[in-house]
Amino acid sequence: MASGDMLFAVQDHVCTITFNRPDRMNAWTTTMEQELREMLARASDDPEVRVIVLTGAGRGFCAGADMSRLTKSANARPEVVEREIKGDLEQRYSYIMAVPKPVIAGINGAVAGVGLCLTLFCDLRYMAAGAKMTTSFARRGLIAEHGSAWMLPRLIGPMNAADILLSGRTVLAEEAERMGLVRVLPAEDFHAQIQARAAELAALCSPRSQRVIKRQLNAAITSGLAEATRLSEDEALLCRGTEDYKEGVAHFVEKRAPRFTGR
Amino acid sequence: MASGDMLFAVQDHVCTITFNRPDRMNAWTTTMEQELREMLARASDDPEVRVIVLTGAGRGFCAGADMSRLTKSANARPEVVEREIKGDLEQRYSYIMAVPKPVIAGINGAVAGVGLCLTLFCDLRYMAAGAKMTTSFARRGLIAEHGSAWMLPRLIGPMNAADILLSGRTVLAEEAERMGLVRVLPAEDFHAQIQARAAELAALCSPRSQRVIKRQLNAAITSGLAEATRLSEDEALLCRGTEDYKEGVAHFVEKRAPRFTGR
Amino acid sequence: MASGDMLFAVQDHVCTITFNRPDRMNAWTTTMEQELREMLARASDDPEVRVIVLTGAGRGFCAGADMSRLTKSANARPEVVEREIKGDLEQRYSYIMAVPKPVIAGINGAVAGVGLCLTLFCDLRYMAAGAKMTTSFARRGLIAEHGSAWMLPRLIGPMNAADILLSGRTVLAEEAERMGLVRVLPAEDFHAQIQARAAELAALCSPRSQRVIKRQLNAAITSGLAEATRLSEDEALLCRGTEDYKEGVAHFVEKRAPRFTGR
Repeated sequence: MASGDMLFAVQDHVCTITFNRPDRMNAWTTTMEQELREMLARASDDPEVRVIVLTGAGRGFCAGADMSRLTKSANARPEVVEREIKGDLEQRYSYIMAVPKPVIAGINGAVAGVGLCLTLFCDLRYMAAGAKMTTSFARRGLIAEHGSAWMLPRLIGPMNAADILLSGRTVLAEEAERMGLVRVLPAEDFHAQIQARAAELAALCSPRSQRVIKRQLNAAITSGLAEATRLSEDEALLCRGTEDYKEGVAHFVEKRAPRFTGR
Repeated sequence: MASGDMLFAVQDHVCTITFNRPDRMNAWTTTMEQELREMLARASDDPEVRVIVLTGAGRGFCAGADMSRLTKSANARPEVVEREIKGDLEQRYSYIMAVPKPVIAGINGAVAGVGLCLTLFCDLRYMAAGAKMTTSFARRGLIAEHGSAWMLPRLIGPMNAADILLSGRTVLAEEAERMGLVRVLPAEDFHAQIQARAAELAALCSPRSQRVIKRQLNAAITSGLAEATRLSEDEALLCRGTEDYKEGVAHFVEKRAPRFTGR
Repeated sequence: MASGDMLFAVQDHVCTITFNRPDRMNAWTTTMEQELREMLARASDDPEVRVIVLTGAGRGFCAGADMSRLTKSANARPEVVEREIKGDLEQRYSYIMAVPKPVIAGINGAVAGVGLCLTLFCDLRYMAAGAKMTTSFARRGLIAEHGSAWMLPRLIGPMNAADILLSGRTVLAEEAERMGLVRVLPAEDFHAQIQARAAELAALCSPRSQRVIKRQLNAAITSGLAEATRLSEDEALLCRGTEDYKEGVAHFVEKRAPRFTGR
């Protein structure tokens, strides 16, 4: 049933989902979008998976929407769509934020348009040194797609967001890091470094803690400070008595590596 | 009718509005405020203008409110004003955010008080290397004026905002850049560099895209993520079939400079 | 009545509150929490105090909750607590934000868990070069405590917040500075440098201005931009005619050091 355009692999509790159309710089298609959604659901449910990595095969991460689709749609007329009202974390691609495990974007090479937008909803973004990114929209006659006009100001401040959205200019990984958008890693052995960092995150931390903390971070987007504090007090009580809390204290006192169960 | 305290010029689709009281370090007056508002309205309406620059004549950008006004008002009694309730983007100086074209602050030299406040509502802030900025309020017995207590934490985070507001200290352009408040450019040829950057923004990007993206950024200040995503989906449909979208794809495919019309 | 676990001293209008259990790396106890609250109330009321510093005795700032308390509670059952609904700035430890004077965290050494959380509610955070910080929660099977899942994204952006909360990893002062969480000062003479900076803040600025600006910053967390602008206009009128405003203009015109009274 799988198209081969997306790969799914699990090693050391790390699930790697690879955009796999390297001859097209992993340009984005409807098939890839649907398979990403399915693979993230599968990784969310799999107790063997503790951390998820999104990355690209070949030289690029994602060149944006497949241009063959774009040129076709340039002549299409706007269509009226009946849309279901969905919540903040059920949008295309905000549903990635609702995945109850850390999601890392491993931006191995060039990233543009929709490819960049979907990384905005990941918890962490690592980018290969020297790689290029662009929103591209303002140079295509397009607009800030997929909630990027909401996410970017919150991630890197209103000035940086206005800069890269209003100009559509190309930004190198190093400048993106100064904006606080990504962390740069050496381009050589990029995939191995991402795997090592993800594996460490899986080995040393309680999956239950990470699940609750992601829920807290998501709730804090819309809640007030008092509400967020009360949620933290409730969750602090609830984690007492769990296996992961007992293990979290025990491995510290016994000065050994943790063996968390996620319960 | 113009006082000469503010200059208006258009070149290569870039409108430059110059604060022009260099012998007073462009200290701010009621006349300048009114003329800035009129000039921004004129630049908004002029189809020849695609990008707007605010800058100062002489060594400084703006020394803050004219001190002759300040010393006079120190002895004045608080007056009761009947005020009209206006929206978020209709305040003094938040109306700058509602200008439907990119607005760049070209901070060519020292900036203080109200001069700094009005730059907070521009899309981008470039500052000459070595130039000085200060909120100054806490050292004058004043308070955080013109919504700066709202804008600064959102632009540079609560800690940097508290620092420069509670201390009123002088910050060099280089430190302001580390805070994410400005981008530093060499002081030599500062105006020429700003013009070049603004002209590039005007030449390479769709004015229609920039207009919609500014609207999206402004809407995202108060909207939720779901609402922002739906707005981006609506706007993505609406831009199909526009001249700028067709040109945006065409110049890319034909590998040539774009000829956007803004429609 | 004082336990000796917390010290209170005032010099040059600067009140220094010192966590004083150096043999336990100032690990946090219920007694310390209660005394911090009392000492902050006392410093708030004392007209001699203009700036407040929180710091630690010995090598560390605060190692987090006292582990003897943690190991005991690991076996305790969740208790049901009847809680009073309180406002955003009345939570543990958000009440620190409501202190009407600048509060500086002088993080002289290692800081973890609850020790880090309480510094998030200070106006400024200075940290000794080379010192270590960690949220630690995810490695203990705990969750993001005391509203840290709300404060951290607002202080350092969602990506940095997710990084340090989901990993529980140790971050050096230098990396924390790059995230915008702290300002680094040389470890040598750390306490003297903090005192000098706090004393300058007390000497050069109007206490009345600082009090009003803190109120404006706190109000801006939940208010809209229009509301924040109207508040700044109201406060701008109210400060005319005050002693501090007259002195703020006078010392500037007379080119001398200010003598603010806070009225």
